[in-house]
Amino acid sequence: VLLGIGDDAAAVRWAGSILLLTTDTLIEDVHFRRATASLVEIGAKALAVNLSDIAAMGGDPRFALLALAAPATLPVAQADQLVSGILEMAGAHRVGLIGGDTCASPDRIVVTITVAGSVDGEPLTRRGARPGDLVLVTGSLGASAAGLAALERGPLPLADHVVGSVLAAHRCPAPRVAEGRLIRASGAATAMIDLSDGLAVDLGHIAAESGVGAEVALAALPVGPPTRAVAEALGEDAGQFAARGGEDYELLFTVRPDAAADLARQVTAETGTPVTVVGRVTPAGRGVRFLDGAGAPVRLRAGFEHFA
Amino acid sequence: VLLGIGDDAAAVRWAGSILLLTTDTLIEDVHFRRATASLVEIGAKALAVNLSDIAAMGGDPRFALLALAAPATLPVAQADQLVSGILEMAGAHRVGLIGGDTCASPDRIVVTITVAGSVDGEPLTRRGARPGDLVLVTGSLGASAAGLAALERGPLPLADHVVGSVLAAHRCPAPRVAEGRLIRASGAATAMIDLSDGLAVDLGHIAAESGVGAEVALAALPVGPPTRAVAEALGEDAGQFAARGGEDYELLFTVRPDAAADLARQVTAETGTPVTVVGRVTPAGRGVRFLDGAGAPVRLRAGFEHFA
Repeated sequence: VLLGIGDDAAAVRWAGSILLLTTDTLIEDVHFRRATASLVEIGAKALAVNLSDIAAMGGDPRFALLALAAPATLPVAQADQLVSGILEMAGAHRVGLIGGDTCASPDRIVVTITVAGSVDGEPLTRRGARPGDLVLVTGSLGASAAGLAALERGPLPLADHVVGSVLAAHRCPAPRVAEGRLIRASGAATAMIDLSDGLAVDLGHIAAESGVGAEVALAALPVGPPTRAVAEALGEDAGQFAARGGEDYELLFTVRPDAAADLARQVTAETGTPVTVVGRVTPAGRGVRFLDGAGAPVRLRAGFEHFA
Repeated sequence: VLLGIGDDAAAVRWAGSILLLTTDTLIEDVHFRRATASLVEIGAKALAVNLSDIAAMGGDPRFALLALAAPATLPVAQADQLVSGILEMAGAHRVGLIGGDTCASPDRIVVTITVAGSVDGEPLTRRGARPGDLVLVTGSLGASAAGLAALERGPLPLADHVVGSVLAAHRCPAPRVAEGRLIRASGAATAMIDLSDGLAVDLGHIAAESGVGAEVALAALPVGPPTRAVAEALGEDAGQFAARGGEDYELLFTVRPDAAADLARQVTAETGTPVTVVGRVTPAGRGVRFLDGAGAPVRLRAGFEHFA
């Protein structure tokens, strides 16, 4: 066993290779609601969050298992939609759905997916960040939190494509598999995690596991125009969505300072995904701090919570 | 992919070896009740049913992942008991619990375990039974069904150790890992499955996958004295418990007729587990038939159901 409980995926040696294994459960009315997402989207997301865990190790997802518990009242056609969402996401990442288990659930849909992945070398963990490293993220932040807020507090006086953009980010995140593979293969990254619980919490995991602190410049966080528009319409601070919002499933990683710019350019060139430097790793002792434009620490509100 | 959906475990080629993967969900009030089983037993059973799936391929379970959804009202000490049951069962089979996921569930405990296993050669599937092969089972049958009936309809006017024996079979089945490995390694077995849904249903799976039929002599089914005593106290037929009762987690397998007696002796000699010839494989067309002492077909009542 190379990595047990406590990283994004477990890693074990297997016949001279490394086997990555991860599992995640999504429960109706905790992680999703049938009223606000289609079963196709729910299935796709259930697999995506597991693919994201493999991506966070720099691995390649290969095979998936589905354990589906569904109420007897769920029409077969709807269960088929959920499976078709899984298969669509699996196909996009060349992952085989090879087995599973179905059983009756008294009331809620419970979807547990397990993914096995490979990695071409040592997996990238949460443990290797060193003071002086830069902190980077893929894509943009806060869109999923904006989508959740729009669902809960909408309708909003915004164009459909604006709201649709953040809803899509919330309902069906895109796991950053190709990006994670490039980041690990570069040899320049020192730690990585996927953003499931929000930047503040997940950077805290890297800091704790690596025995370091970190500083993030709030103004540096990449926030898309739809997220800004939704935040404004709700009277919220888009920076809070970006710093605290969960379920973006972007990759957060630390890189040797001399190699960060080149790696960011390479990932963007090969995948089309923006990569942004948002902060730096500091010695342990002051924890994870968010700084305003003047370099003064900012206090974030309480952390991201799932909605039930 | 060697074996996808439809066998006890999936099997894929992995770095020159074979990787077996299986997953099963247990839901409170569907698969277990906290009123009638301890959390230690629930945890042990949740892993045992997955180990049994690997055993049914003739494989060695190696690693397990736990996805646990629990109500916020579940005391941490009780969640720890559930995990300790998993760890106890894992230790008995030298399986490493290497990762997992915990999340909130609104009302019920939902335990999903995934097990990765290896196999030293080709896994034994449900597909290879041929007419003329003999049908064998490990251990004894019907004890879990008797235990479930005793829980639902007790208390019974029987000695504690009698009722305790069938309750233990129901609450905490012993996966037949060593037995499965020997049966596969013999090269004489042609198909195998574990008895989760009951002999009638599971032999039907072998028959369907192999394109054969089967005949089982009801009088040949191995039934322990406690199961007989409980059946008698309830006014039930112990043969029905044995033929239809689910969750025995014994192995059901088919063997070339010339090799069956030797294999049965070898498994018993090396593991202490009895092995019994209960029937034979027939050509397709007449399905799975149960015969009485005179060789006449017997009609079984409706199949085993979980209790919710």
